[in-house]
Amino acid sequence: MLASAFVILASAAAEESAFLRLACTFQLLTLSPYPCLSLSSVASLITLEVKTSRRTLLLNVTPEVQQIVSSSAIASGVCHLYVPHTTAGITINEADDPDVARDIEATLDRLIPHKGPYKHAEGNADSHIKASLVGSSATVLIDNGRLVLGRWQGIFFCEFDGPRSRHLLVKLAHDP
Amino acid sequence: MLASAFVILASAAAEESAFLRLACTFQLLTLSPYPCLSLSSVASLITLEVKTSRRTLLLNVTPEVQQIVSSSAIASGVCHLYVPHTTAGITINEADDPDVARDIEATLDRLIPHKGPYKHAEGNADSHIKASLVGSSATVLIDNGRLVLGRWQGIFFCEFDGPRSRHLLVKLAHDP
Amino acid sequence: MLASAFVILASAAAEESAFLRLACTFQLLTLSPYPCLSLSSVASLITLEVKTSRRTLLLNVTPEVQQIVSSSAIASGVCHLYVPHTTAGITINEADDPDVARDIEATLDRLIPHKGPYKHAEGNADSHIKASLVGSSATVLIDNGRLVLGRWQGIFFCEFDGPRSRHLLVKLAHDP
Repeated sequence: MLASAFVILASAAAEESAFLRLACTFQLLTLSPYPCLSLSSVASLITLEVKTSRRTLLLNVTPEVQQIVSSSAIASGVCHLYVPHTTAGITINEADDPDVARDIEATLDRLIPHKGPYKHAEGNADSHIKASLVGSSATVLIDNGRLVLGRWQGIFFCEFDGPRSRHLLVKLAHDP
Repeated sequence: MLASAFVILASAAAEESAFLRLACTFQLLTLSPYPCLSLSSVASLITLEVKTSRRTLLLNVTPEVQQIVSSSAIASGVCHLYVPHTTAGITINEADDPDVARDIEATLDRLIPHKGPYKHAEGNADSHIKASLVGSSATVLIDNGRLVLGRWQGIFFCEFDGPRSRHLLVKLAHDP
Repeated sequence: MLASAFVILASAAAEESAFLRLACTFQLLTLSPYPCLSLSSVASLITLEVKTSRRTLLLNVTPEVQQIVSSSAIASGVCHLYVPHTTAGITINEADDPDVARDIEATLDRLIPHKGPYKHAEGNADSHIKASLVGSSATVLIDNGRLVLGRWQGIFFCEFDGPRSRHLLVKLAHDP
């Protein structure tokens, strides 16, 4: 259907999207089935738009990331995941039983309570701290055109100050 | 001894090893001295098999990862480490005094107790949470054919639901 | 101006600086405005020297890392950050309000107290544990010759056993 390069525009949720300069240099197929995500790309730098529905939420974005990999024609390489926010992060954990994500959320909320004796005055100091514990970047391997994930693993965007419109950056690099 | 490429088979610990398709494209020497580890490879994607002996255990795998780097003939690049499990992770810390690893294990067990008010019904919710805090991926630099590690640093496979047979994926990428 | 390889020595300025002799294999411009950091490079592997002033301290090193990227002539690629210490780490979080860094420091000190029932006898077991929670490596994307950071994001060297002289390794890799 798609003969060459296409631009799929994210609705460019203002605030943190300065890095978005949209000029897709490889074919991206439609991302239809995932209403919470839209997609854009800068060369091999792809921006997934993520909409979160709660203050603390681990959202499984594995199908969207896999679709980017599948659309890229990269057989072997790495997939860098990067969250350009200071109150959100990225983790890889069990995607089969959603209770695992709920337990991670609850434990982070227990260890780092929303209301604490924090200095940061915006009411989301806990969100920042959670983001640093979980981390802003992760690297997943690509082999045979697929993400190399363990049987139970999924990629989770970690919202700690939602609900919000967020971005997840995906950068693919084929083997040199 | 080894004239060219060889396949060194991991005993393919069933469960999470579907991604293993063994076809070694560069020479791997024997990994004899480490009884807890065996080795396999897909192109530059290597799978180390790790056997853990306790429920919570940080296992130093630095010699095995260094051996993969040394066998690869990559002088300069990066070494991606990836754990394809949801109740295990990877960290880098002091390898000189084993008490440091014991303190990390004990502190994680204190902060995230085995038995808690968790939703996940399999009795290892804490293991999943620990895995997300420690992380599933790490990237170590390669220079002069060696891992660039600090004087006291070692690479630790982090078991949080052992004892088990586990895998650690090692992907080397030379500089472009 | 610079025809080939050069060694650029930052002058050991002010409260936070020191040495590092190296052989620069690509052009590095002056590193003027940052008295706390000096710079050296081996091929594309750069070592930033960081001086920390407190036991627990998140130090914003974004300008120095950006300067390395800007000096490299890499338009598109990735920037690997690596801390070769066992009681320090790297994180990405808000650089606008310094209270956020203070809250992260305080929360880590609360969760993992300096004095605890630790086995490691050097009095810094907590520092090691904090390092593993925050992590030793991070990967930031490069696009249009700039670090791709969110609007509020900065890169923080995380000192957990200061004050000390430390190193942060920066490895740039352009797209293959």
